[in-house]
Amino acid sequence: MNKAKLMVFEGYGQAMSLQEQNIPELKSGEILVKNLYTSICGSDLHTYCGLRQEKVPTVLGHEIVGEILAFSNDHPQTDHLGNQLSLGDHVSWSIFSSDPDSVMSKAGMPQKGTGLFKYGHAQVTEDDALHGGLSTHCVLKPGTAILGISKEIPLPVAAIINCAVATVAGAVRLAGEVKEKTILITGAGLLGMVCAAMCKDAGAKFIHVADINAERLEQALDFGANESHLLLDTSVKLPEGIDVAFDMSGSADAMENSLNTLAIGGTAVWIGAVFNTRKVQLDAESIVRRLVTIKGLHNYNFEDFVYAVEFIHKNHQVFPFEKVVSKEFSLLETNAAFEYAVKHKPLRVGIHLNQESK
Amino acid sequence: MNKAKLMVFEGYGQAMSLQEQNIPELKSGEILVKNLYTSICGSDLHTYCGLRQEKVPTVLGHEIVGEILAFSNDHPQTDHLGNQLSLGDHVSWSIFSSDPDSVMSKAGMPQKGTGLFKYGHAQVTEDDALHGGLSTHCVLKPGTAILGISKEIPLPVAAIINCAVATVAGAVRLAGEVKEKTILITGAGLLGMVCAAMCKDAGAKFIHVADINAERLEQALDFGANESHLLLDTSVKLPEGIDVAFDMSGSADAMENSLNTLAIGGTAVWIGAVFNTRKVQLDAESIVRRLVTIKGLHNYNFEDFVYAVEFIHKNHQVFPFEKVVSKEFSLLETNAAFEYAVKHKPLRVGIHLNQESK
Repeated sequence: MNKAKLMVFEGYGQAMSLQEQNIPELKSGEILVKNLYTSICGSDLHTYCGLRQEKVPTVLGHEIVGEILAFSNDHPQTDHLGNQLSLGDHVSWSIFSSDPDSVMSKAGMPQKGTGLFKYGHAQVTEDDALHGGLSTHCVLKPGTAILGISKEIPLPVAAIINCAVATVAGAVRLAGEVKEKTILITGAGLLGMVCAAMCKDAGAKFIHVADINAERLEQALDFGANESHLLLDTSVKLPEGIDVAFDMSGSADAMENSLNTLAIGGTAVWIGAVFNTRKVQLDAESIVRRLVTIKGLHNYNFEDFVYAVEFIHKNHQVFPFEKVVSKEFSLLETNAAFEYAVKHKPLRVGIHLNQESK
Repeated sequence: MNKAKLMVFEGYGQAMSLQEQNIPELKSGEILVKNLYTSICGSDLHTYCGLRQEKVPTVLGHEIVGEILAFSNDHPQTDHLGNQLSLGDHVSWSIFSSDPDSVMSKAGMPQKGTGLFKYGHAQVTEDDALHGGLSTHCVLKPGTAILGISKEIPLPVAAIINCAVATVAGAVRLAGEVKEKTILITGAGLLGMVCAAMCKDAGAKFIHVADINAERLEQALDFGANESHLLLDTSVKLPEGIDVAFDMSGSADAMENSLNTLAIGGTAVWIGAVFNTRKVQLDAESIVRRLVTIKGLHNYNFEDFVYAVEFIHKNHQVFPFEKVVSKEFSLLETNAAFEYAVKHKPLRVGIHLNQESK
C-alpha cells in the first residue's frame, strides 16, 4: 500500500514539512479515508499564528471531505444515520470522537464526552498519525459520527460542513425557533454567512448582519441577510427589537452591543469567542428585567452535524457556497496557503489533496 | 358600605399616612377583595429607602392574600384554572394584570404584556386607589390570574406566594430539569429559602447555598439546603461542578463567582439583580467553551404562579414557611413595620390587616 503524505506542524514560526507515514492496519471500528479536500478554518490560523497552543508535532486541518478506502473487518458499513456506506463514497465526519456512553454524550454534548479525540488537533505519534486534514489519509475512530455526502456537492462546499456549518447548526438549535424572528448576526466570516443562510432557510423574518468589513457584508446579502451594518465606529447604531443575536465574531464590543439590541425575552447565542479577549461587561439588571438569555456553544453535537449535512444537501446551490473558498492550493503548497489566508483573510482557502495526481 | 383604609406613600423620607377611600362600584371583570395579610417584599423596602422610584402617591405592598367580598355582575366566578370561586374564599393573585392577547402574553411573558398594571406599584387616583397591599381592600382587574387558596394555609405563608414563591417558580422553570442536579443558590433571603425548598421538592441531588449572613445560612438548611457557604471574604471557595446556579442576591460578585462554579453545560438563572449595581465581568471564551447558559427573569408568568400555589399547598408544612414572617404589625403600624424591616433585615415582616378588628 502507498504511504500517506502529511504536512506536519512543529510550532509557531516553523514552516510545515512534508512527511510520509505508513498506513496502519485498521483497528476495530475504524475506517480509512482518502482525504479529498480540506478548507483552512480560523482556528487552524490561530494555531499557525501562535495564538493557540497545540501539542506538536501535529497535522492541522479538520474541515475535511474524504472518500472511503477501507473498513475495518468488524465495521457495520453504515453511517451515523444507519445508511449503507460503500468503498468510494464521499463522507464528512464529526471533528471529534468520544465515548457515546459517557455522561456528557448522553446529555447531548458528545463534543465534551469522555475519551474526546479531535481531528486536526492531535499529536502525531508513530502509531497514530493520520488524523488531520493536511494529509492524504485519515483514520476515522469509533465514536466519530460519519455521514455520506452526495458527489454532486462540490468538494470545497462539502469540506466546510463538519466545522463551520455544523457549529452554526448548533447555534441555531440553541436559539430555539428562528422562524418569523428578527435576527442579528455579528461577524460576517464564514460562520456569519452560514448563519444568515441557515436562518433564511428556516424562515427568519429579517436578518441583520454587522461587521467591520464592508466586502464581507456585501457578500452576506447573497447568503440571505436582509440588511448589513458596517461598524466603522461607535456612532453606528445597531437595530433594536432583535429576537436572536448570534455572535460569530468573538469581539467583546460586538457581544455587548448586540445584547443591547435584544427585545424582551430575546436570546444571544455566542460561538465566536474561542480566543482570549477582554471581559464582556454585563448589566445584570437589564438582563433580568428584559428576561434575556445568553447561551455559549463550542463545537456541536451529532444532531447538529446531521442538520448541517441536510442543510448543505438542500441549499448548496441556493446560496453561493461555491464562492466560500476563494483560492485553492495543493498539499505541498500548504505553507503558501496559510500565508495567503493570513494576509488576505478570505472566508476560506482550500487544499485540494488530489491536485498533484491530476 | 364601609370605606377602605390605606397607608399612602408620598415619597422617600415621608411617613406613610392613613387615608380613607370610597369602595368603588366594580367594573366589568373585576373582583373586590378584602386584604387579609400583606408581607413586605424587598422591593417595597427599596422604594421606601429611595433606591427605587415609583409614581406617588402610591400604596405599596404586593405580596398579599385576600378574601373575596364581591364579584362584578359579569364575572364568571371561576379562578385562573377554571375552579369555582365563592364569596369568602381566600385568594392569591398575580402581582400584575395585562392583556392576555398581547404578543408578550402569548409568548409566555404576560408580566411584560400590553396594558401592564402592577399591584403595589401604581399611582393612587380618585378613581383607582385600591391596588396595593397596605390597604384594607383591593380591586382585582381583568387580566389578573386569581387562584383559590386553602384556608388551612396560614396567612403569612399564603401572602408570599404571589411574589417570592412565584418568582422562584419561574427561576426553576428556566433552569429546566433540577431533578438529580447539583444546585448552588447565592443569596439566602426569602427567594433563596424558597428556591432551596423548591429544588429539594423537585428532587435535586445536592443543594448548596451561599450568603454573607450566617444566620440566614443556618435557616436555609431547614429549607432543604444540604450545605451552606459563608462568604466572609474572597478566600472562600465555592463548590465546583454545579449544574444550576441561581442568583437571588443581585450581587455582581456572587454572579461572577457562581458562573465559575458551573459544570460544562451548566445554567445560571439570575433573578436577584433588580437594582443597579456594578457591571458583571464575563469571560466570554469560558462561557463558550463550557457551553454555559445565563437566563435572566423578572417576575413570572401564570404557569409559574400556578406552580407556586400548588407548591405551597403541598409543602407549607414540609418546610418552616411559618417562620418566614418573624414579626407582625397592624396596618396603622406600617411605618414601624418598615423601620423594623430596614433595621433588622428579617426575611419578611407581615402586616395583619384585620388585627385592629380582632
